[in-house]
Amino acid sequence: VSIALRIAYDGTAFHGFVRQAGVRTVQAELAQALSRIYKQVVEVRGASRTDAGVHARGQLVAFDPPLEIPTEGLLHALRGELPEDLGASAAWEESGPDGGPLNPRFGNDGKHYAYRIRIAPDRNPLTDRYEWHTRQALDLDAVREAAAHLVGEHDFSSFRAADCQSKTTVRVMTGIRAGEAEPRDQAPTEAGRLVGQCRVVVIDVEGQAFLKNMVRVMVGTLVEVGLGKRSASTIPGLIAAADRTKAGDTAPARGLTLVEVKWPRRSG
Amino acid sequence: VSIALRIAYDGTAFHGFVRQAGVRTVQAELAQALSRIYKQVVEVRGASRTDAGVHARGQLVAFDPPLEIPTEGLLHALRGELPEDLGASAAWEESGPDGGPLNPRFGNDGKHYAYRIRIAPDRNPLTDRYEWHTRQALDLDAVREAAAHLVGEHDFSSFRAADCQSKTTVRVMTGIRAGEAEPRDQAPTEAGRLVGQCRVVVIDVEGQAFLKNMVRVMVGTLVEVGLGKRSASTIPGLIAAADRTKAGDTAPARGLTLVEVKWPRRSG
Repeated sequence: VSIALRIAYDGTAFHGFVRQAGVRTVQAELAQALSRIYKQVVEVRGASRTDAGVHARGQLVAFDPPLEIPTEGLLHALRGELPEDLGASAAWEESGPDGGPLNPRFGNDGKHYAYRIRIAPDRNPLTDRYEWHTRQALDLDAVREAAAHLVGEHDFSSFRAADCQSKTTVRVMTGIRAGEAEPRDQAPTEAGRLVGQCRVVVIDVEGQAFLKNMVRVMVGTLVEVGLGKRSASTIPGLIAAADRTKAGDTAPARGLTLVEVKWPRRSG
Repeated sequence: VSIALRIAYDGTAFHGFVRQAGVRTVQAELAQALSRIYKQVVEVRGASRTDAGVHARGQLVAFDPPLEIPTEGLLHALRGELPEDLGASAAWEESGPDGGPLNPRFGNDGKHYAYRIRIAPDRNPLTDRYEWHTRQALDLDAVREAAAHLVGEHDFSSFRAADCQSKTTVRVMTGIRAGEAEPRDQAPTEAGRLVGQCRVVVIDVEGQAFLKNMVRVMVGTLVEVGLGKRSASTIPGLIAAADRTKAGDTAPARGLTLVEVKWPRRSG
């Protein structure tokens, strides 16, 4: 039986989830910690291949333990072995659908990402790791109108990295919502001196699966709509074009968090 | 005329506010940025000598510009010169009370600090930079009862660092409040699996001036009360003892933020 782990990380100092030679990645750090605990080489499989700099609250990974350690004891051992920017919050035993190894890339009920945009005259050193800072106001109604066109089943070829390797480009977005959140850790208002207003926009994206950079290209395009650089009514044509060069810039990684890989209760 | 700056910083990578040889400090980084802008050596004076690792949203500093740059242009230039974990949100011209150089240590209307404590079974890599993580529940009513004893004018000798240099030890706390805040960036609840509850307690402390480590020693002591290790009724005796060894441990720097140095409107 495999062990599933719910993990969270601050992506700032990681070159993404997937192991790559010569750089610090979530997959390698977690495998190293587990290998120290089990005193054997352990490899982990993740549900989402988050990009360099992208954060996670509810990433899901699985591995095959070379010997039996109760999940409570395993979580306790991981607390001592993981670096400060990577943590595990839950562990449980679970087999794959055929009784074989569990692979969380398959069988999950979709993913929820959240993208935070902070609109303010100045950077905020206390939130910059987790937000895209911009000085220009966004028309939230226009963003919502554009987002509505992206919901549903579409060919998302226009919204993926140029080097995306996926053979299929049709994906289903189950929901895209744009809303305002309370700004965090704002500088105090000056006595008698106007300090610029701050507004935080959060774009929540939920879907079964995503292409490489897809959320960030969608957000970059939605922001262009919000800035009035393109109109919401152009989105259906942009989808139909199936051409990455027609969409907006890829939004910075720092604003994106994998909130949850949804997982059905199968056992336990 | 001096220039006052409202600054914010993530204290994690700073060895505190005050310049020290061989380490990275807020005072030195800011002075270096200003010196590059003015092409002459500029020194800055701060209102609060925050410890290593302590954050600030509304620290106040002042300096004497060697040549005239309008404050809007100065803020713009600072945006380009300051590192990512240090930012300036407001700038204005102001003289000291005698028409001489402005020193924000004097003439401010007090300081507001906030201390965040996260009570949860596991660390959270997305909030650990800004919160003290503990696994044990706190009795918030007991914390409030103890805090009430600290409000007002007292000799705070029991609540300062062993190496605190201040000659006077009487200070006035104008308010200490303990409350709950919405937890940030929590891991998702597992489908059908109990994941431990998370609670965030924020202790807000306001006073005219503070001794070295004073907020952190007060918080460490209040947490011991919340954990049942000492009773709230022992606080008056602890104050009267005027003995640092009788108070609780110094709470970790990471949970503390200088929210605001209050500044009266004098001009502009």
